[in-house]
Formats: sequence, C-alpha cells, structure tokens
Amino acid sequence: MTFFDALDILGTVAFAISGALSAMNRKLDLFGIFIIAFVTAIGGGTIRDILIGNTPVSWMQNTTNLYLIGGVTTMSIILRNKLDYLKKSLFLFDTIGLGIFTIIGVEIGIKAGLEPIICVALGTMTGCFGGVVRDILCNEIPVIFRKEIYATASIAGGICFISLYNANIDQNIIYVSTALLIIIIRLIVVKYRISLPLFTIKTKK
Amino acid sequence: MTFFDALDILGTVAFAISGALSAMNRKLDLFGIFIIAFVTAIGGGTIRDILIGNTPVSWMQNTTNLYLIGGVTTMSIILRNKLDYLKKSLFLFDTIGLGIFTIIGVEIGIKAGLEPIICVALGTMTGCFGGVVRDILCNEIPVIFRKEIYATASIAGGICFISLYNANIDQNIIYVSTALLIIIIRLIVVKYRISLPLFTIKTKK
Amino acid sequence: MTFFDALDILGTVAFAISGALSAMNRKLDLFGIFIIAFVTAIGGGTIRDILIGNTPVSWMQNTTNLYLIGGVTTMSIILRNKLDYLKKSLFLFDTIGLGIFTIIGVEIGIKAGLEPIICVALGTMTGCFGGVVRDILCNEIPVIFRKEIYATASIAGGICFISLYNANIDQNIIYVSTALLIIIIRLIVVKYRISLPLFTIKTKK
Repeated sequence: MTFFDALDILGTVAFAISGALSAMNRKLDLFGIFIIAFVTAIGGGTIRDILIGNTPVSWMQNTTNLYLIGGVTTMSIILRNKLDYLKKSLFLFDTIGLGIFTIIGVEIGIKAGLEPIICVALGTMTGCFGGVVRDILCNEIPVIFRKEIYATASIAGGICFISLYNANIDQNIIYVSTALLIIIIRLIVVKYRISLPLFTIKTKK
Repeated sequence: MTFFDALDILGTVAFAISGALSAMNRKLDLFGIFIIAFVTAIGGGTIRDILIGNTPVSWMQNTTNLYLIGGVTTMSIILRNKLDYLKKSLFLFDTIGLGIFTIIGVEIGIKAGLEPIICVALGTMTGCFGGVVRDILCNEIPVIFRKEIYATASIAGGICFISLYNANIDQNIIYVSTALLIIIIRLIVVKYRISLPLFTIKTKK
Repeated sequence: MTFFDALDILGTVAFAISGALSAMNRKLDLFGIFIIAFVTAIGGGTIRDILIGNTPVSWMQNTTNLYLIGGVTTMSIILRNKLDYLKKSLFLFDTIGLGIFTIIGVEIGIKAGLEPIICVALGTMTGCFGGVVRDILCNEIPVIFRKEIYATASIAGGICFISLYNANIDQNIIYVSTALLIIIIRLIVVKYRISLPLFTIKTKK
C-alpha cells in the first residue's frame, strides 16, 4: 500500500463519518444512514465517472471502499455520542479528504486527455459533489453554495496541480503541494471566518 | 409474452399510478403529472443504466414502456377520485413492482459480470430509486430514508437471488422465490408496523 | 460562425444570466452564483449526453461555452441592479434559448438513430432540464412542474421538428419553424396567462 492509497482511505473514512453524522442529525433510519454515508463518500467520484464515461463507475469495479464505508458507518452509529469529541479531527480528516479527492479527480482528467479547465472541474466535483448529493437527498440547499470556501479551496488546489504538472514537477511533490495548499486555505478560512462575498439585488420600495 | 414480461408490465403500471397520484397530491400541473409518473416508473432503471454505462438507457431503446406509462397516467387522471378504493391493490402492485424491478436489476448486474454486492445494489436501485427521484423532484426527503422497510426488502430479495443463482437453482424458481420474499417482507412489515431503528445523537443541555 | 452558432451563443448567454439572477435572489455566495449559472446553461445538455452515452459530455469536449458562461456571469454580478430593466429582453432570450436548445437536442437524437418520441424527449430535456437542476440545487420544486407552459412549448417544437424532418423539408426551414413555434407559444401563453390544468384529488370530509 502506497502513501497515496493510505490518504485515499483516510479521505473515504472522513467523508463516510461526516455523512453518517449528518444523517443521524436528520433522524434518518438505519438504511438512510448507510445510504447517506455511502453517497457522501463516493458521490463525487461517481458524478465524475458518469460525466467522463468511465463506466461501470469506480466503486462497482473496486468494491473495497464499499466494505470500508460499511464498517466506518457501523462504528459511527455505535460511537455516535462520542464523536462530538472528535469534531476537530473530523474537520481535519474532511479537509484531507477534500485534498486527496481533488488530486484524484484532476489526475483522472489529465489521463483522459481533457483540457486543464476541465481537469480542475473534475477535481472540484470529485472533492465536493458527494456533499452536494448528500444535501440534496436531505432536502437542503447544498452548504457549499451558501457559506463555505470549501469548493474554492478545491479549485485553488486543482489550479496548483495543473500548473506544477505542466512545469514537469515530480508527481509526489505535486500531490503534497496540492493537498497542503487546500488544507492551509481551509484552516485559514475557518480560523479567520472568511467567506465569499454575497451579491444581493436591490429591490425597490 | 412470457410470465416475466407480464410482471414487468404490472410493475411499470403500478409505479406509474403511484407517481401520478403523488403528483396530483402535490398539485402539479398536467405536464408535471406525466413527468413524475414517468420518472417513478423508469427512474430506477435509468440510474442503473447510467452507472453501468448501458447507454442509450433502456427506455430509449425500447419505447413500449413509454406509451404504457402515458396510457396509465391518463387513466389515473380520469379516475383519480376512484383510485382511493384501489389503494390496497395499489400497495400490492407497488410491492410486485419492487420485486420484479429488483430481479431485473440483479440479473443485469450478473450479466455485466459485476460482483455480488454490486448486483444487489443494482437490484435495489432499480427497485427503489424511481421513488427517490420522484421525491427529490417534489422537494421532499425521500421517504425510503425515513420510515419504510422498502429498500431493506429489496436488499433481502437481492441477496436471496444471488445465493440461489450461485447454487445453480433453476432461473424461474429464483424469480418466484425472490419476488415472494420481497412481497412477504413488505406485507409483514406493513401489517405489524415494523420500522428500522433510528439513532439520534444526544445533545448536551 | 453560422447563424445557428450565433443562436446557440444567445441561448447559452440567456440561460447563464437567468441562472445568475436566480442565484443572487437566493443569496448564494460568489461560488454558488457561478455554479448555478453554469448548471442552468449546460445542465440540460449534460443530462441528454449522459442518457445517450455521449461522454465525455459536450462541455468537456468544447470548452468555449464555459468561458462564455464565466464572462456572462461576471457581467451579471456587476450589472445586477440594472438587469431589472432587461427583464423583457431576458424573457425573450430565454425563450430563444429554449427554442435553440430544443432543436439541438432533437437533432442529436436523430443523428443517434433514436425513435421520434425519444428525439422529442431529448429536445425537451436539453431545453428544460438546466432549469430543473437549478431548482433542485436551490431546494425548490422545479417551476416547470407547477405553472409554466415552458416544457409544453418545447414538446410542441420537437414534434414540429420531427414532422418537418420526416417530410424532407430543408434543414434551415426546420430550424426557423421550430424556433418560431416555440417562441410564439411562449409569447401567447405569457400574454394571456394560460396555464395547464391542475387535477386535484377530492378528499372526504
């Protein structure tokens, strides 16, 4: 197992926990909890695969992640009242997941020979759209459209990846730089409560 | 026409009626009623086809079902105030639909050479996700995430199908056993008002 | 650049503006505004491409529209308080967009050798489903299911296209006739406040 695989697993675990907590907060039943955990962890990659025509989608070709998500969700349910104390590490895991999944998405775009802007979009979708599908299924306006720099950090990471890639930098350095950039942006944003500007339309009175 | 085809038609009819009634309850207009009936009847199979890369999706390759859904929806609108008396048979039809569509989904997965757990997932998606898309379009939390054993019955049926298939049982016996299992679970669940457990998170006061 | 290309651009521009205004009305942040503008303009075509298996989807193969949508959305944000005066032309652009996108969808269906009813469905999805995805992301019941003749105009246009095509009419005449039919239906419907009938279910008291 490579360092990259380990990070992939960390990302999947973090997203599964985040999905399971989210579902329990919304009082979904046992089945709902598993589905939402599953969707949060693999939704972004699934949408990416569908858009580029990589079918059967990844989780159908390699089922390891399914069992991982199942196990993590079961643990989340058992430990649900203790996870509160894990919130800080959860935020870190989630951010690591965002970093890793962005990298995976960008790289798949490059391998498919797509244009740089599309590679960045694929990275962002892989990183963020699991959460979007989770929020849609739970009947809420996806949180990334409202207040987080979440997607913006992912976009910045994607641009960083593509730039370093075009400069022929060593792959491992690209991975680490991209992930670090995304993590640092998220940490700064959350620490200083930065948010993207809103543009409201004036209505006449 | 085989017995299997007849059941397929029954399932499509039941899901179309259920979608049309659902749309009228939400005061959608004529177009909305047809779209929701259509989506409820073919949504699960469409998501399955997209995920495994079976495109153009089934209803584009064989349009018989489209005309069937159109006719059934028209009848549902005309008879909308009489369908109340049909509720019990509707529940039965709907459950038959769940059984048949689960079988179709599992079998497509097996033919595509996918792993057993994925075949079960495809069966469940084929059976249940029409209703999920219907609820999302109608801006509600999908009902299967909240209180029904619906999906659980479909999963049990899928596991039954795969087990019998691996034991080299005759195909017709597999079909009947799987469908019966799903129907019996649903009947028991509804009769005894069984539901999956909820796991809520304690909040400090 | 052909007349057809010019219309395509006009349609994309109109849908992007409509999406951006919609997002600002819902107080989404900067990222949300761009995503919703993007989804409104390319959502219909994306769903069409996924259903027929035309992947990577169109906007990944030709990125011109992405830059166009980005520019238009930026302008919409800057001019957001002046766009009020443009409402009438916006409605016209939007209707032109519906006409053009319906044509594009029908034609793609014909080229893929699909049945007439499927070609009409593809035209309607290309024209309307960007707005449907926009409404789902914004957590509202899609407006086309509730009060507009929007989709119905698109369906009528699709049927017109197919009929003329089967009669071997010159392609440019088909384009103009289809677009005009859709635009005229929309204008009449809005002017005379026509809407599709609702069918409600009587409840016993």
